[in-house]
Amino acid sequence: MTDFAATKALFHLPEGMIYLDGNSLGPLPKTTAARVAQCVTDEWGEKLITGWNKAGWMAQPTALGDRVGRLIGAEPGHVVLGDTLSIKVYQALAAAVDLMPDRRVILTDSGNFPSDIYMAEGLIKSLDRGFELRVVAPEDVAANLTDEVAVLMLTQVDYRTGRLHDMAALTAAAHGVGAVIVWDLAHTAGALPVDVAGCQADFAVGCTYKYLNAGPGAPAFIYVAPRHVAGCQPALSGWLGHEAPFAFDLDYRPGPAIERMRVGTPPVLQMAALDAAMVIWDQVNMQALRAASIALSERFIKGVEATCPMLTLASPRDPAQRGSQVSFHFENGYAAMQACIARDVVGDFRAPDIMRFGITPLFIDAADIDRAVAVIAEVMDGRLWDTPAYMQKAAVT
Amino acid sequence: MTDFAATKALFHLPEGMIYLDGNSLGPLPKTTAARVAQCVTDEWGEKLITGWNKAGWMAQPTALGDRVGRLIGAEPGHVVLGDTLSIKVYQALAAAVDLMPDRRVILTDSGNFPSDIYMAEGLIKSLDRGFELRVVAPEDVAANLTDEVAVLMLTQVDYRTGRLHDMAALTAAAHGVGAVIVWDLAHTAGALPVDVAGCQADFAVGCTYKYLNAGPGAPAFIYVAPRHVAGCQPALSGWLGHEAPFAFDLDYRPGPAIERMRVGTPPVLQMAALDAAMVIWDQVNMQALRAASIALSERFIKGVEATCPMLTLASPRDPAQRGSQVSFHFENGYAAMQACIARDVVGDFRAPDIMRFGITPLFIDAADIDRAVAVIAEVMDGRLWDTPAYMQKAAVT
Repeated sequence: MTDFAATKALFHLPEGMIYLDGNSLGPLPKTTAARVAQCVTDEWGEKLITGWNKAGWMAQPTALGDRVGRLIGAEPGHVVLGDTLSIKVYQALAAAVDLMPDRRVILTDSGNFPSDIYMAEGLIKSLDRGFELRVVAPEDVAANLTDEVAVLMLTQVDYRTGRLHDMAALTAAAHGVGAVIVWDLAHTAGALPVDVAGCQADFAVGCTYKYLNAGPGAPAFIYVAPRHVAGCQPALSGWLGHEAPFAFDLDYRPGPAIERMRVGTPPVLQMAALDAAMVIWDQVNMQALRAASIALSERFIKGVEATCPMLTLASPRDPAQRGSQVSFHFENGYAAMQACIARDVVGDFRAPDIMRFGITPLFIDAADIDRAVAVIAEVMDGRLWDTPAYMQKAAVT
Repeated sequence: MTDFAATKALFHLPEGMIYLDGNSLGPLPKTTAARVAQCVTDEWGEKLITGWNKAGWMAQPTALGDRVGRLIGAEPGHVVLGDTLSIKVYQALAAAVDLMPDRRVILTDSGNFPSDIYMAEGLIKSLDRGFELRVVAPEDVAANLTDEVAVLMLTQVDYRTGRLHDMAALTAAAHGVGAVIVWDLAHTAGALPVDVAGCQADFAVGCTYKYLNAGPGAPAFIYVAPRHVAGCQPALSGWLGHEAPFAFDLDYRPGPAIERMRVGTPPVLQMAALDAAMVIWDQVNMQALRAASIALSERFIKGVEATCPMLTLASPRDPAQRGSQVSFHFENGYAAMQACIARDVVGDFRAPDIMRFGITPLFIDAADIDRAVAVIAEVMDGRLWDTPAYMQKAAVT
């Protein structure tokens, strides 16, 4: 599907709102409520325990894995859904360091999402084997790839600036020093086309509540390259990752392939919401989406820069180096974003001074961009952000 | 609330079905569909990203924690919801072994749920510090408590037989040898009253999709005793367990108390379903529930034993040593259970020969028990299980 006027009609958006925060929590597809209601009333209510087989609950994590996998260029059968992104980061990283018994450095960058770094800290502490988490600036990653590095762990798109790492180049560079790579695709999946198989990424993880529109608390995903999966001994070895969960053996034997990255009971209601969202995504051409995202982003940057001299572009100017968001620096960014939100242009703020706007062609069009620019210009030009209420509120999301 | 005729009216049960499997997946409360629909349509659809504050999504895991905590005797502020039970087992066990740096034995019993044992195996492998998982028979636990034991990890109610461990006695015995204890309350929470605070349990975990009726994939819970929580360094150190998640610091600092056992984004739709179920549970008197459970269980055992000589009681005969389920041995138990299910009496089967029936007074009454007994007797007496279809099917749930 390349007709994004058609996809826009598939989403519920509050009347009058321009929602430029689909990179934080995607909006509600119109069919989701009915799909979730069906899951609750017909599947759970009527099928009860038999839903695990008769409603396909048990197979959902891998069935949905293939559908999400298409968006990131994964081979079928190598993505599974479940848990949260932080848990999936932990699983990928634990498996990755296990592949590299003689090295002790986990390299990442300061643009990584903090939870990824926290999970790495926790893993390192548990392992207690002298691992070092080395955090460098995003632009210094390649230069810090040495033969000490066991794992390069990166989030492809910086959650503040939208700066985009070159997946193929950095994967090749990591492999060049004998390291393995873990990609966090939180701001990539559904934002731009990538090809984890083509660039031979080792592990990838991501979430589905942002661009994929699967709702608050939607499950995360994990990809393991086919060449690694048989050798991965899961650190979080739960029963649904067992070769035969219902044999109830007392010894863990990992499942045949990506199934071993399952842990516990999947969140069936959240999976139903993801299913509804994927009905839309199944039809989306990612190249067309990327073209639309760039066109809208360029239009937005041009508009804001023409009207808001107080705002400084924080995102890369080159669209090839940018994900699907546009960010600006402004010292009173929190207050300014509150003023925009009060006028139904919804983006969000990231400390210390980032005003962040998600560009999501499935439901945002050129007219929305133009109206957003006009509202932002009005807020900035009129100093409408400069009120006690906006200035004093603490940022909480 | 002690009027279980009134609670029965609060559940949707398929017409004509006697559902004795609420210990595997509880049935649907009648208000859940509307509560989940409200979450999807009003909270997500209308509030979008502001739902984290305006709809209370961020506070749900601890707010629901207090409500679940009441059922297990936890102090307010010491239970949090999230993730799956396997993940919560891992967190509790990792924190527990951390408290005992000089000991290397994790003691458990062969009646523990296999996933708990698998998660322990995974943790031991990650730690790689010479930990030993010692698995003994349930009746031999106390005798194996020595000063080598760092952690005693037990599921209170055996998922096959319903055998109930004495929480107060085993907790005291563990403490007597200087060990800490992790209780899995999967088949306890909502099944019988326990008092984790009163018996000074160190850690407890459990799920909410069984007796608590929160639906397939509902979140798990974890309790950490007040005396331990400040010293726990979470192994799964995710951003929502951080002291200040939205400061986006690059260093992990654990949250003030039980919040540190949060990991990633909570499953908001599943939390809404749990909220609806807890509206019922908030009113339940656990002592009255236990009395009703024992009365129904005794009636069921008496009825089956009077009519089904081929079935042998697998559960303890003394109700004080039994959870809220009744199990029987029968060599063709899988086929017999299929025959019962075909006649709308739904229990489940656990290998090698266990027919398991959950006794859940919230929605099962004496008339249901009598009808179930009559159907089971008809199946057994008429050898209705002895058909190729029932005999050949493999057990999958």
